[in-house]
Amino acid sequence: MTKYIVGVDVGGTSTKFGVFTPEGEKLTHWKISTDTDDDARHFPARIASSIEKRLLDEGIAKEERLGVGVGVPGFIDETAGIVHNAVNIGWHDYPLQATLAEALDIPVFINNDANLAAAGEYWQGAGKKEASTLFITLGTGVGGGMIINGNLVTGPRGTAGEIGHTLVVPHGRLCTCGREGCLEEYVAAKGLRRSLHDHLRNDDGPSPLHENSEAIDIYKAAEAGDALATRIVDEAAYYLAYALANAATIVNPEKIVIGGGVSAAGQTLLQPVVAHFKRLVLKEADRHLAFEFARLGNDAGIYGGAWLALRRLGR
Amino acid sequence: MTKYIVGVDVGGTSTKFGVFTPEGEKLTHWKISTDTDDDARHFPARIASSIEKRLLDEGIAKEERLGVGVGVPGFIDETAGIVHNAVNIGWHDYPLQATLAEALDIPVFINNDANLAAAGEYWQGAGKKEASTLFITLGTGVGGGMIINGNLVTGPRGTAGEIGHTLVVPHGRLCTCGREGCLEEYVAAKGLRRSLHDHLRNDDGPSPLHENSEAIDIYKAAEAGDALATRIVDEAAYYLAYALANAATIVNPEKIVIGGGVSAAGQTLLQPVVAHFKRLVLKEADRHLAFEFARLGNDAGIYGGAWLALRRLGR
Repeated sequence: MTKYIVGVDVGGTSTKFGVFTPEGEKLTHWKISTDTDDDARHFPARIASSIEKRLLDEGIAKEERLGVGVGVPGFIDETAGIVHNAVNIGWHDYPLQATLAEALDIPVFINNDANLAAAGEYWQGAGKKEASTLFITLGTGVGGGMIINGNLVTGPRGTAGEIGHTLVVPHGRLCTCGREGCLEEYVAAKGLRRSLHDHLRNDDGPSPLHENSEAIDIYKAAEAGDALATRIVDEAAYYLAYALANAATIVNPEKIVIGGGVSAAGQTLLQPVVAHFKRLVLKEADRHLAFEFARLGNDAGIYGGAWLALRRLGR
Repeated sequence: MTKYIVGVDVGGTSTKFGVFTPEGEKLTHWKISTDTDDDARHFPARIASSIEKRLLDEGIAKEERLGVGVGVPGFIDETAGIVHNAVNIGWHDYPLQATLAEALDIPVFINNDANLAAAGEYWQGAGKKEASTLFITLGTGVGGGMIINGNLVTGPRGTAGEIGHTLVVPHGRLCTCGREGCLEEYVAAKGLRRSLHDHLRNDDGPSPLHENSEAIDIYKAAEAGDALATRIVDEAAYYLAYALANAATIVNPEKIVIGGGVSAAGQTLLQPVVAHFKRLVLKEADRHLAFEFARLGNDAGIYGGAWLALRRLGR
């Protein structure tokens, strides 16, 4: 009898689902709008009924359902099954695991969404077969996750892998987390735009860039040879390399995988990062290390959810 | 039949040994001088004969010997059993594991000495029973190791946990590793003395400190209220807290254990570090986190060697 697992990726706007075999084959996937009304109180019931309905439609019987893994953007206590804080969804100290497990009557496991995106890439994407991999997601902000010796690292609050909140400048730019000098304020879409505004204020000479330019415009202008854009991209590359070098020095991974919307900038992003990285990392930590782009795109989270359930069920 | 394991801690001057039960009870311990002549080529044979002789003296028969775990100060490939580089000993790309295993005819496992000191504390010292612990050793330099989810993290070159070589100041002080701004150049004995020299050059006013003062003198002067010493200690505390905050943010450990000679400064060291740390760490990563001093002193390495052998033997 074939068995199936469900991966769920809860996002601020929509929530994605996928049904997988234990070998990592995706049978079907779909998404629904995330209902954040009333602190998202009614949304777990909708998640459960959406899964129930699809499994019925696919003809997957009760005894063929192994479990469900759910990624949530926020701080998660995986062991207790509690979402401590998911600001964009509305859950605070919310017993998501028990609520879903009761509604679905199969095992449910929860974790941070960035951790599960890392796990998904590790399972079926760019990190495949490496014992230890660092994942970084460059979108509006910076997300991250770590697989060490084949295991997802989470920590008691699931902050493990939060490289976007490692400090790169003592007493640096104020971050939304309340601290100063977080990587996130220097790279990704948010950080690039902040750098652009700083430079425009200093009047660095003519440039096609203006205060409403987006991160991808900055990368495009850099690719076209614009001096201001090149400077901004290089600064961001330096700080990203700096934080990755520190993470790689203490974790000694075999691979660093870069994903997220900003990674669409491709080699324009990667080349200066790798060049700075090679100067900044402890040499011995660089000897068995490769950079790679993520492969699963927006599906990484649902793959990761399925992997989490599989691993926690000991399969 | 009781079984025994041997832990070995190879140091630049002397090499320590301990015989342990699988429950962590130390039966006996001893040390010999490290023979670094001729790139330490003859030393593995001496390690083996010293173990052989002591096990005979203790009446531990062949079938009671489980294995040996050896810590070496340098970059180690544990899987291949090779010491890539141990500058203070003389081994370069040296097959230490195979050499010792052949001489002793029992399983041998090798790892970095700081990693094994961390493992020793985790097994029978300060990190006991915590799933994830960061260890930092403040001596002349800064060593480190990590236990995550009960497993020692090493990486393909064993650099994992090398928090002394994470960068704390962009384009900062030149480190012996060739890079700029490593933590090690701002804290521990080496960093404190470097800070002292910088401050003495700037003529910061009268102080009992002079250019030959040692790290422990600086801590004592700070405790006695000397302004210069207090400033140096606080700067060091800031950078140590900064590096620990970054490590804690991405690893999310339950405990940070501080050991090494400089940790003798006790609360004078710890209080400012913890105060800075609380401001610098991602808040969620600090919720289940405690600081503690190491408990095993110079024995941590031999305990760790025994633990490594036990774990690798699946016990």
